[in-house]
Amino acid sequence: MNVTTSPTETTLPLRRHLLDLASMPQETLEELLALIAKVKSMHLAGETMVAPQASVANLFFESSTRTRFSFEVAEKRLGLQLLSFSSSTSSVNKGETLRDTANTLLALGAQFIVIRHASSGAAQYLAQCTHAQVINAGDGTHEHPTQGLLDAFTLRESWSSLAGKSVAIIGDIRHSRVARSNIAALPKLGASVRLFGPATLLPKPNEIGERNVMVCHSFEEAVRGADAVMMLRLQHERMTQGYLSHLRDYRQGFGLTVERYRQWVRPDALIMAPGPVNRGVEIDDAVADNPQSVITKQVENGVFTRMAVFLYLLGVRL
Amino acid sequence: MNVTTSPTETTLPLRRHLLDLASMPQETLEELLALIAKVKSMHLAGETMVAPQASVANLFFESSTRTRFSFEVAEKRLGLQLLSFSSSTSSVNKGETLRDTANTLLALGAQFIVIRHASSGAAQYLAQCTHAQVINAGDGTHEHPTQGLLDAFTLRESWSSLAGKSVAIIGDIRHSRVARSNIAALPKLGASVRLFGPATLLPKPNEIGERNVMVCHSFEEAVRGADAVMMLRLQHERMTQGYLSHLRDYRQGFGLTVERYRQWVRPDALIMAPGPVNRGVEIDDAVADNPQSVITKQVENGVFTRMAVFLYLLGVRL
Amino acid sequence: MNVTTSPTETTLPLRRHLLDLASMPQETLEELLALIAKVKSMHLAGETMVAPQASVANLFFESSTRTRFSFEVAEKRLGLQLLSFSSSTSSVNKGETLRDTANTLLALGAQFIVIRHASSGAAQYLAQCTHAQVINAGDGTHEHPTQGLLDAFTLRESWSSLAGKSVAIIGDIRHSRVARSNIAALPKLGASVRLFGPATLLPKPNEIGERNVMVCHSFEEAVRGADAVMMLRLQHERMTQGYLSHLRDYRQGFGLTVERYRQWVRPDALIMAPGPVNRGVEIDDAVADNPQSVITKQVENGVFTRMAVFLYLLGVRL
Repeated sequence: MNVTTSPTETTLPLRRHLLDLASMPQETLEELLALIAKVKSMHLAGETMVAPQASVANLFFESSTRTRFSFEVAEKRLGLQLLSFSSSTSSVNKGETLRDTANTLLALGAQFIVIRHASSGAAQYLAQCTHAQVINAGDGTHEHPTQGLLDAFTLRESWSSLAGKSVAIIGDIRHSRVARSNIAALPKLGASVRLFGPATLLPKPNEIGERNVMVCHSFEEAVRGADAVMMLRLQHERMTQGYLSHLRDYRQGFGLTVERYRQWVRPDALIMAPGPVNRGVEIDDAVADNPQSVITKQVENGVFTRMAVFLYLLGVRL
Repeated sequence: MNVTTSPTETTLPLRRHLLDLASMPQETLEELLALIAKVKSMHLAGETMVAPQASVANLFFESSTRTRFSFEVAEKRLGLQLLSFSSSTSSVNKGETLRDTANTLLALGAQFIVIRHASSGAAQYLAQCTHAQVINAGDGTHEHPTQGLLDAFTLRESWSSLAGKSVAIIGDIRHSRVARSNIAALPKLGASVRLFGPATLLPKPNEIGERNVMVCHSFEEAVRGADAVMMLRLQHERMTQGYLSHLRDYRQGFGLTVERYRQWVRPDALIMAPGPVNRGVEIDDAVADNPQSVITKQVENGVFTRMAVFLYLLGVRL
Repeated sequence: MNVTTSPTETTLPLRRHLLDLASMPQETLEELLALIAKVKSMHLAGETMVAPQASVANLFFESSTRTRFSFEVAEKRLGLQLLSFSSSTSSVNKGETLRDTANTLLALGAQFIVIRHASSGAAQYLAQCTHAQVINAGDGTHEHPTQGLLDAFTLRESWSSLAGKSVAIIGDIRHSRVARSNIAALPKLGASVRLFGPATLLPKPNEIGERNVMVCHSFEEAVRGADAVMMLRLQHERMTQGYLSHLRDYRQGFGLTVERYRQWVRPDALIMAPGPVNRGVEIDDAVADNPQSVITKQVENGVFTRMAVFLYLLGVRL
């Protein structure tokens, strides 16, 4: 989120984009989480929130169910006009540049562009070279800020405050935009983060500059005593890229199996996963479906999160 | 359709799903056909039917024009909120289970899931393992209940009653979910069914337990005197699977050619096909387009049928 | 556009289709351009135009961003009900004929069919064999009439009249439906057209019968003194078909490079491109983005053009 507030203007800062959580000030993060809570309670009370008229282009260059649908439902609930664009049926096949595609969508009337792209920095690039208001729906291995927001919101819903809490994130940290957005957000809210995964898929210590973020040396070290355990999705393509040997080995070493869960995880710890889940790989069925799992709640909260982001960027405060 | 009525509660039975016609009691079938008729007459009179607010996810794992669009038009006419999902642009590519995909859609706000899937039993499975209201839009070689309903409705429109009528179904009976739904529904409405097709694609006699369903030994035996002739679509992939030799041979042996039509079919018999039609294979152009053909009427009635199904499952009786 | 007006009925001619600009009388062209202007000014004034209730099926058999979205935005702004159909997820894969697909869409409630198809004449064919009102969104190498209309409108916006103006069209003239629609429309509005491109991709002199259309022998001859220069998109597939050697060679011989622009193009000439643009191939970045470029304005006007076409075919005159 591009911070362009003046010190005197604290109630309606002029933020145009949601690009990352790393550069987002703590107050903005708090403000957004409060807005998500209001959106959720208004929705559950049956109140309709209609956003100022605006048109949104959803530009998904990678396949996605939950994120794309979550944005779509949020947009429809707010009465936004939407263009849904998936790369397979579009001129991107014809070699058009990303900037030209975006400018075409603007000329067609879109005010917002929600972009998912395989290249880190794609959202930032669009924000710089077009007049669109850009929402990053996941860019390469960089960030997935609405996921980070919904994760933080889901944790806060259970705990009221994140201060002093510890969250373990397990898996392919190096390539995970979800991990990166959580690493950016959680410490700002007072939580500490513990990271663990295959040695080839861990960041180097000097890559993680944030305070309260720790790379662990064993599964046990990461999860024992943690207040929440987030199991990242294993991308199958990592196998062919030489990072990993076999799915079964992955489960052996890095999956949240029933055994590990019983042995090391606190009974009141929350179980999270950004999904889609590879059952029996990064997480066992019995763990994914147990009462401490908030995986489905994450999906539910995703819609409220995206509604709040649109409202926020449109200058609406409820 | 899951029958969960109590004996005393006959007017508003609590049916949650439409999974098949085989397990549907005759009264329910009659009730649904009556509802379709009301929906159609209200629509033609220009009356708008707005369903109670509900959200629908269309989950199509196989390609489809008419069924998918038919549901989409029905949903839009009823003012239902819809998520359209096709497997090619979704996380299914990422190895997510069907149950997790469905639960994600529920968490995103969907109440209904309309599912087309290559596996027989997929709709039933979803109905058992999720909280969605499930509508089967075709599952493998099992059933295609909305097609069976629209076929029965189309016949009733012409005949007022199906009692004593005979319907010939010609083609790949073994793999046809359309045939199976018709075989389930028509005898309950008083009609008899005659089946014919290539020997490799016929059910074995003991597979067809229903009364009033007969496997015939020749084209002539099946169609002579029949009140309606339904020509199933030939799936091209049956060729490569060794069931058939060549398209031309198929037409020779099993197509409704002009010659066969003139020789054996009653002039007042209705001509039906679930479509999309392979012209010149299972049916000749002149037959598909003659005045006795109700192929286009089947498509029109399909929309009213799906509207009625949603209303029914929402507890609305017009 | 099928001209079926009677001589006495000049205000509300009964035109059902928009198939091409070649057969469109000059008065109709003028009437449409005036309607586009009204639609644009009403839209910019914030006035909502709601069309009579009608349903539209967008039938795109070739990939497209701008044309498909442009129609979609136009349809949504007018409150038309829309079915979006792309060939990859449809029964076309199952061998259904174009006519049957169209008739299915009509039976599902569509009144209009917007069709893009690889075969020249596909739109005309549908208009003849179905009851749909057909809008040609590009058929093979034949015509792209809404593009021709938006190009003419964009030029008129800058010049008020096209009389005496000259427009250079550079590139693969032979295969360009955009060129063909411009060649049909511009002379009717008083402009002359100059054509240039690779010798293998130029029409033969006798193929261009229109007055005021000239095939040029050099880039300089085509663009020197021209009031507008339209750079056609180079289809990459022409390379493999033996028409061209290499992209770099294309730019060398036929691209609107900065050098050629400075040397030969009038400073007040408008720069146009139907897009999507191959930057650095048919046009250099600095030219595509300079202040004389109306490429983005073409996209904007495309939406107003399609709105006007629907209104026109629905008999609405603002």
